[in-house]
Amino acid sequence: MSRLLLLSSAMAGDSGYLVWTRPLIRDFLNAHSTPVTRVLFIPHAGVSKGFDTYLNHVRTALDLGDVTLESLHDSDDPESAIRSAEALIVGGGNTFALVKRLYDLSLMGVIRERVLEGMAYIGWSAGANLAGPTLCTTNDMPIVEPPSFQTLDLVPFQINPHFIAGKSAGHHGESREERLTEYLALNSGIQVVALPEGTALRREGEHFELLGNRDAWLLTHQGTRTIQAGQTCDDLRGSEGTGRDPKTP
Amino acid sequence: MSRLLLLSSAMAGDSGYLVWTRPLIRDFLNAHSTPVTRVLFIPHAGVSKGFDTYLNHVRTALDLGDVTLESLHDSDDPESAIRSAEALIVGGGNTFALVKRLYDLSLMGVIRERVLEGMAYIGWSAGANLAGPTLCTTNDMPIVEPPSFQTLDLVPFQINPHFIAGKSAGHHGESREERLTEYLALNSGIQVVALPEGTALRREGEHFELLGNRDAWLLTHQGTRTIQAGQTCDDLRGSEGTGRDPKTP
Repeated sequence: MSRLLLLSSAMAGDSGYLVWTRPLIRDFLNAHSTPVTRVLFIPHAGVSKGFDTYLNHVRTALDLGDVTLESLHDSDDPESAIRSAEALIVGGGNTFALVKRLYDLSLMGVIRERVLEGMAYIGWSAGANLAGPTLCTTNDMPIVEPPSFQTLDLVPFQINPHFIAGKSAGHHGESREERLTEYLALNSGIQVVALPEGTALRREGEHFELLGNRDAWLLTHQGTRTIQAGQTCDDLRGSEGTGRDPKTP
Repeated sequence: MSRLLLLSSAMAGDSGYLVWTRPLIRDFLNAHSTPVTRVLFIPHAGVSKGFDTYLNHVRTALDLGDVTLESLHDSDDPESAIRSAEALIVGGGNTFALVKRLYDLSLMGVIRERVLEGMAYIGWSAGANLAGPTLCTTNDMPIVEPPSFQTLDLVPFQINPHFIAGKSAGHHGESREERLTEYLALNSGIQVVALPEGTALRREGEHFELLGNRDAWLLTHQGTRTIQAGQTCDDLRGSEGTGRDPKTP
């Protein structure tokens, strides 16, 4: 039974770093019959700050009490670290850097396998993108070239984190809606869940729920519908994924 | 002698489609001792509108008079169309779609070869990104996966089109400067020319000039400097490219 908590962003509105995520993450880690006691952090989306700094910021901000938080980058044997973890937290940063580094470490397969076995998965921003079938709906700049765009395929839809409608006055880059509409024009069978900052999607097996105090959006080639804040949205499982071989990547 | 006109955007400020580019493009096509009479348009970055529609919009907007404008998508033999073209115009849209489609058509090598032989190259937005060494500093969403991030390598620096400073209040996605700083952190030997909307870079062999009425920026791992509007900036040739074999891609 897959358990995932996919958060749009580390920050929401004027509140401090990870503040809005703290109750959601604590509740998710405690919800299972056997509460999680050891969490592995994956800082590999981080680019502008070092992994040690990133770990310290997250440790301080999440303040998980008796739950220990170790980092993948401190492990001599990353695959064993994944295999023995009770839960993963994948931080935000640059999705392309995250995906390239996890492929370079040959960890994509084992992470997927462990989540499908029941290991809890938490990710925000790039860490939420990683849980989808591909990185195609990230907002990030392609600052490095990963060997593949395929990601963990742990939910049967794409995620667009940091979703924001409209565009800046006087600027002629595409709006987010235009970008996602173009994605759907070239990938017409796929669904996209657009998560505004301050929203998160929680999966408990076949049950999906939108958390946070704002609505989110489900975009398909046929149109867009609202996913209401605080509501279950089990029909998200309706799209049976991308047909990928469950043993890959 | 390579001749390139790389424009940040099709639109600038409140003016209509391609209006600000028209005098720059006409001047560029007429500047050579033998003015260009036949131009080949490449609409393959277009996603939300069909290629026929795209061609018609560009034909109307540029209004090139006696200069004929044919489109690559109307040719039965795209390679011959490139080989016989006097100049190329590569329109904007999605950079990933453009790069994938040109690789799928096996045209990257022949375009590069022809520009190095002297065929004039004009591109805006995604079409400007295409002229750099890689697509890594595009602003576009990775809506499809190209076989490689390598692009034409016709200027020895990356381009960031539609450059805009700062970020929207209350939103926590990265600013453009943060994205480019992250690019430089992982690609420290490369230079990036950041072109605000309404600016263009013109290359005539070893001579570079910034066109338009706004400054642009040269970003390196060591820092940022201004490229002044209307000034030559021949030192941009100082970085001797990426060391790529000139026969590839």
